[in-house]
Amino acid sequence: MTQLEKARKKKITKEILAVARNESLSPEEVRVRMEQGKIVIPFNKNHSPKRICGIGEGLRTKVNANIGTSLGSKSLKVELKKLKICEDSGADTIMDLSTGGNLELIRETILSKSVLPVGSVPIYEAVITAIKKKGHISKMTEDDMFSTFESHAKDGVDFATIHSGLTLEVVKRMRQEGRYIDIVSRGGAFLAEWMILNKKDNPFYTGFDKILKIARKYDVTLSLGDGMRPGSVGDATDRSQIQELIILGELAKEALDYGVQVMIEGPGHVPINQIPTNIMLQKRLCHNAPFYVLGPLVTDIAPGYDHITSAIGGAIAASHGADFLCYVTPSEHLRLPTCSDVKEGVFASRIAAHSADIAKGIKGSIEKDIAMSKARKRRDWKEQGRLCIDPEKFKLIKKKTALKNDFCSMCGVYCSLKVMDNLSPFAPALPAGREDHGQRP
Amino acid sequence: MTQLEKARKKKITKEILAVARNESLSPEEVRVRMEQGKIVIPFNKNHSPKRICGIGEGLRTKVNANIGTSLGSKSLKVELKKLKICEDSGADTIMDLSTGGNLELIRETILSKSVLPVGSVPIYEAVITAIKKKGHISKMTEDDMFSTFESHAKDGVDFATIHSGLTLEVVKRMRQEGRYIDIVSRGGAFLAEWMILNKKDNPFYTGFDKILKIARKYDVTLSLGDGMRPGSVGDATDRSQIQELIILGELAKEALDYGVQVMIEGPGHVPINQIPTNIMLQKRLCHNAPFYVLGPLVTDIAPGYDHITSAIGGAIAASHGADFLCYVTPSEHLRLPTCSDVKEGVFASRIAAHSADIAKGIKGSIEKDIAMSKARKRRDWKEQGRLCIDPEKFKLIKKKTALKNDFCSMCGVYCSLKVMDNLSPFAPALPAGREDHGQRP
Repeated sequence: MTQLEKARKKKITKEILAVARNESLSPEEVRVRMEQGKIVIPFNKNHSPKRICGIGEGLRTKVNANIGTSLGSKSLKVELKKLKICEDSGADTIMDLSTGGNLELIRETILSKSVLPVGSVPIYEAVITAIKKKGHISKMTEDDMFSTFESHAKDGVDFATIHSGLTLEVVKRMRQEGRYIDIVSRGGAFLAEWMILNKKDNPFYTGFDKILKIARKYDVTLSLGDGMRPGSVGDATDRSQIQELIILGELAKEALDYGVQVMIEGPGHVPINQIPTNIMLQKRLCHNAPFYVLGPLVTDIAPGYDHITSAIGGAIAASHGADFLCYVTPSEHLRLPTCSDVKEGVFASRIAAHSADIAKGIKGSIEKDIAMSKARKRRDWKEQGRLCIDPEKFKLIKKKTALKNDFCSMCGVYCSLKVMDNLSPFAPALPAGREDHGQRP
Repeated sequence: MTQLEKARKKKITKEILAVARNESLSPEEVRVRMEQGKIVIPFNKNHSPKRICGIGEGLRTKVNANIGTSLGSKSLKVELKKLKICEDSGADTIMDLSTGGNLELIRETILSKSVLPVGSVPIYEAVITAIKKKGHISKMTEDDMFSTFESHAKDGVDFATIHSGLTLEVVKRMRQEGRYIDIVSRGGAFLAEWMILNKKDNPFYTGFDKILKIARKYDVTLSLGDGMRPGSVGDATDRSQIQELIILGELAKEALDYGVQVMIEGPGHVPINQIPTNIMLQKRLCHNAPFYVLGPLVTDIAPGYDHITSAIGGAIAASHGADFLCYVTPSEHLRLPTCSDVKEGVFASRIAAHSADIAKGIKGSIEKDIAMSKARKRRDWKEQGRLCIDPEKFKLIKKKTALKNDFCSMCGVYCSLKVMDNLSPFAPALPAGREDHGQRP
């Protein structure tokens, strides 16, 4: 039985218990929302991640970090270092998006090391293997695609991106309408190429029942991919993007009925004013399945700062109901992220997630800010360092600006907090009564 | 005559012409909005900044960068270096917030060098001089306050923060309600101290007519300061903050009637979901005067990353109508910003401003993103480097990851853009007609 099937039988699993504890909710609340498809817990028994993570309605907004090799950077060692950085800096899940080197070995090693739930995108390996062994992506068979997914599932992948909504119809709609940038999703582009060259529809759509069987067998959470994710703010919320979302909504319902946990992936490059609409649409069309967004990036012109363009979009998306933020690093659009990019990306995304959780009213969120504010008022630097999101960076900056007093080097003795402290004893000296405040002549 | 008085007499000044040209608006549109108090052009003839900057409704969102010495860091040279960084990285205005060293000399030098409009907060100098010469802030006379403002105005300051709305009544309301952090505005704390110790109301309120006379004489744009700016997300939008805003609205009307340009300063630390309300309230209570926000910072727990917490808040604020963003650097709450902090702060703020301008539909905004997207689709790296917000950083990252091909090191040959390019000739091979898209069994 999958977790979802157990939840339907009113069973409180140890995964549900862990999520309930982490989120200060009752186990029954978590169970009911899982049953309704509003919460997923990516947890494949063949991996059994130590840090169990619930994603969805009423839970803290979660952060995913992508790692993985590329053709130009095949070092497993570097990727394991990135994994450690993700774990240490507070990512909730990671995805292995490797495309260079021994993909199976990399995945198995990452799975064996990761305390976080691990996601993957099986189509990458299916395509790369087909190109290697058969010479061209078009030679990839439908069975290659399904069996690659099964091998990932068997290895213990906790969630997997499957681009089931990218049908020929969707690609046609895109071409009819026109886009500044056609398809920026790597999996989406692969599938479009395969479909067009083979004049066949997307096997992940036509054979979605096979996907469901594999997912149920290994209890893999499906993350239905958005191949039509806009790659330019000028393409956002167009007909092909929404067409794909409609199809994803239909497939999500099938998955749920089949006992498979499912979430929906979303944009992409989206102008600020279109983000609330995107969230509302996803939640409605997909019956409140958890929404997993990449960014959204609110402008295209800031390569080198895309952790910031995404933090802006992610914070807005999550405050309107997105549940899961895929981090974006400063090196997006430029290169494979370095270790330092990974760290910057995780923290920017966590800031977006936490800020949104304050807005969402998630338990235990604003309480952290209030504790920090109290420590700040007291100029209790030790406590601030303990409470802040990145204690390491805090200490580094503080160390560089050797603090001789309890105030910082910006205002020095003119610290507003100190001024106000000095005033406390004078509170009673304030003029009493309601009418005696100053009047201008 | 001030610019505002000239605008009332239907005169199209060279400053209005410059703003109209910069913003692709007609000079008459700019003039009318200036007359209505919806646009300000900080421009003091004694400074005559080369880069003329309009702030307000329908204009690009502008970015201010604070520079200035502190007691622990008095080097004018360093501050001039920061000034240069601000100019080069695209700040629209700067404020000299110096509190260490020879304040007059620093201000005069910055004014003589800056091609950008320069703002100041005269209360800092008034207080520091009173402490130096008379031993205590409480010894500062009302005349000290006004004459300091006059000396700034005479020196050529284009805009000045005056905390006229922080009355004893407002301070009383704050104490009645309680706050996690009382007053974090430095000027606000000074004035509260002065008022409470002297049992007198705020001279900038009771003597607002004197402020107006000076502002009109030198045509200084007033930036009415928010002494009650919340310093904790838990304090945002409380009664004292809104009380002060009501008073600022009244004073803004007086300034406008008197022929003085005026804008309103705003929060501060504000949860995401309260930002739209803050903008709406300010615009309504202050009759659409330009709104100049500090941040807003959407969480308190991210010292070291407050350029990001502020970019999130600033983007949301501006997309809802805020006109002018005061940058916040990564070192906020920790130390006086370094040169590198200043640069990071300006770019984060510019990203927020530009993203908001896309949402606001400001002319020439999304066009930049579309041009970038087209270059990205073509993998035209030279053009991307030219179009991006920080060409220097772009080049640096690209240089480090020596590009041998036209695709980046993230996807390598599996670049989705390349895949889609390769597919272009196959477009006609798509099945035609409306009914033949794939059907699942």
